[in-house]
Amino acid sequence: MGQPGSAYARAGVNLDDANDAKERMRQDVLATHGPAVLGGFGGFGGMYALSELAEPDPVLVSSIDGVGTKLKIAFALDRHESVGADLVNHCVNDILVCGARPLFFLDYIALGTMEPAKVAALVRGVARACRENGCALIGGETAAMPGMYASGEYDLAGSITGVVARERIVSGEGIRPDDVVIGLPSAGLHTNGYSLARAVFEHDDLAAPRPELGMSLGDALLAPHLSYLAAVRPMLDRALIAGMAHITGGGLTENLPRVLPDGVSVTLDARAWDVLPIFQLIQRQGRVTWTEMQRVFNLGIGYILICHPEHRDEALTLGEHAGARVIGVVGERAAGGPVVVEHLG
Amino acid sequence: MGQPGSAYARAGVNLDDANDAKERMRQDVLATHGPAVLGGFGGFGGMYALSELAEPDPVLVSSIDGVGTKLKIAFALDRHESVGADLVNHCVNDILVCGARPLFFLDYIALGTMEPAKVAALVRGVARACRENGCALIGGETAAMPGMYASGEYDLAGSITGVVARERIVSGEGIRPDDVVIGLPSAGLHTNGYSLARAVFEHDDLAAPRPELGMSLGDALLAPHLSYLAAVRPMLDRALIAGMAHITGGGLTENLPRVLPDGVSVTLDARAWDVLPIFQLIQRQGRVTWTEMQRVFNLGIGYILICHPEHRDEALTLGEHAGARVIGVVGERAAGGPVVVEHLG
Repeated sequence: MGQPGSAYARAGVNLDDANDAKERMRQDVLATHGPAVLGGFGGFGGMYALSELAEPDPVLVSSIDGVGTKLKIAFALDRHESVGADLVNHCVNDILVCGARPLFFLDYIALGTMEPAKVAALVRGVARACRENGCALIGGETAAMPGMYASGEYDLAGSITGVVARERIVSGEGIRPDDVVIGLPSAGLHTNGYSLARAVFEHDDLAAPRPELGMSLGDALLAPHLSYLAAVRPMLDRALIAGMAHITGGGLTENLPRVLPDGVSVTLDARAWDVLPIFQLIQRQGRVTWTEMQRVFNLGIGYILICHPEHRDEALTLGEHAGARVIGVVGERAAGGPVVVEHLG
Repeated sequence: MGQPGSAYARAGVNLDDANDAKERMRQDVLATHGPAVLGGFGGFGGMYALSELAEPDPVLVSSIDGVGTKLKIAFALDRHESVGADLVNHCVNDILVCGARPLFFLDYIALGTMEPAKVAALVRGVARACRENGCALIGGETAAMPGMYASGEYDLAGSITGVVARERIVSGEGIRPDDVVIGLPSAGLHTNGYSLARAVFEHDDLAAPRPELGMSLGDALLAPHLSYLAAVRPMLDRALIAGMAHITGGGLTENLPRVLPDGVSVTLDARAWDVLPIFQLIQRQGRVTWTEMQRVFNLGIGYILICHPEHRDEALTLGEHAGARVIGVVGERAAGGPVVVEHLG
């Protein structure tokens, strides 16, 4: 077929490279498959049998997301495996907010030029994170899009589908004054606020050690988005949780209100957790107000659980290994808005 | 909050514009929701209740895809509604190959700059195509990624989940010699081969009328990807189909073998359908070999059905309104490879 000399290859798309990428990812993908996955690798659609679901009256919960401009850090450092975990863990947390456990995942990779080794590294990272979250990788699309992406660059997105029993959906509706707000620490920026962080660090060397961070800027910025599934599942099994929020774009101030019922507000005490050094550095070096910081970044809290006071001790014990701590309290709706962060900065 | 003056906005991300885009799309999204969709708009995960599924022993079928560099044509013409139909219909056809009907969809939009009106147009197109395919739009992500995408440009991807009864899965396993190959016409390139087409037409005026096309080059290139759901569902209900293929990247030559069992091959007769004028033009102007043309483009056949001879007449009658016609025959595996196209060019 003389692919390298073909008109399509000259236009920037090499179909043989695409097939090569497919072969390289095959084993990683198949390793995520359990008995519910039908049809193997390379079909038009991925198939997942529902016959083994344990949940009564099952409700599917689905989410789609990308990694955002954190990818630019991966490009700069030429490190492409951890962004797969960023993507999968982000999606796992999004459906966990409704109480769902993951069933299957699909990834979308768009590149300026098909690079089989890079695609294989990305899919390896996605597949590994899928396995860690008990999730099957049942499909994906890898598209060479010359002229859309710079050579060597790519975008990475993916969608997850999970399941929850209808009577176990966590909606936040039952949240009431005096409920306890528990925070789970983040590992860094996770996947939000990178355009601001990149502007702040535009002239910094990503590879140089930074004493105030205890690591290089690149390592701090590439720290993976954590999955909270392992910490939260036991609490869900014990029905301890009234509401949850995944702290993504919009930060504490905009994500928490998404699950608060009318008439209540939350007051957080920033002294109760570590506002990680990377956020201190961004704030200081970028001269960003703390008001804006809390709208853009997770500030060290990646996931929030709200429970009634009688469940507080058990939830804290179950979440201890993930660093669970009380960071605030629910009150009546106050003048300062649905979420107020005190003692920040 | 003074968003336009904020550090994040100066870094290229305006959260108020993001919220504006969200408000503009709300009604279009909600109009796709039936009783199975729980939880409304704006949750962390979209929820779809399985309690109303009619399929016994249901198997979920899921696919993720993008629009590819067809988007570059949309950018050049500043027309952003039809690419939503391209995306949804592509995904609908992918799961239709397994025999599945769509349940829900999620879209991913990544832009250089958040443009609420453009995002609203994109989502309107996605939502309309979802409604036409009886599919709920239960979630999405819109991400501003300055520095990744040129200002005014975007990528658009999405994932679909559908369902099929396990005993009604169409796998192609039962395909045997003497089976009939039926083609359903495409409307143009659908979403594949655009990098090659764009290279061929690099110096052409997209807006000028082209007599050999009966329309402008831009109109011919933006012709939407067709959904074959309405044509194929009645045939599936009557169990007429042994195997199907969606003709996407890789063309006739690489997609059809994905569903052929070992030991059989297919011979297509290109005189049986219209190799659309746009493909003739690409071949002639780009001096592309027909061998390569059939590996890159659908050449006028967007979807292929294979049935046993005794089902041929009923399938043709049911598919008549979609232009169904016999385009080839299944034989023993021959020396020319699994798919041979005769009388092309």
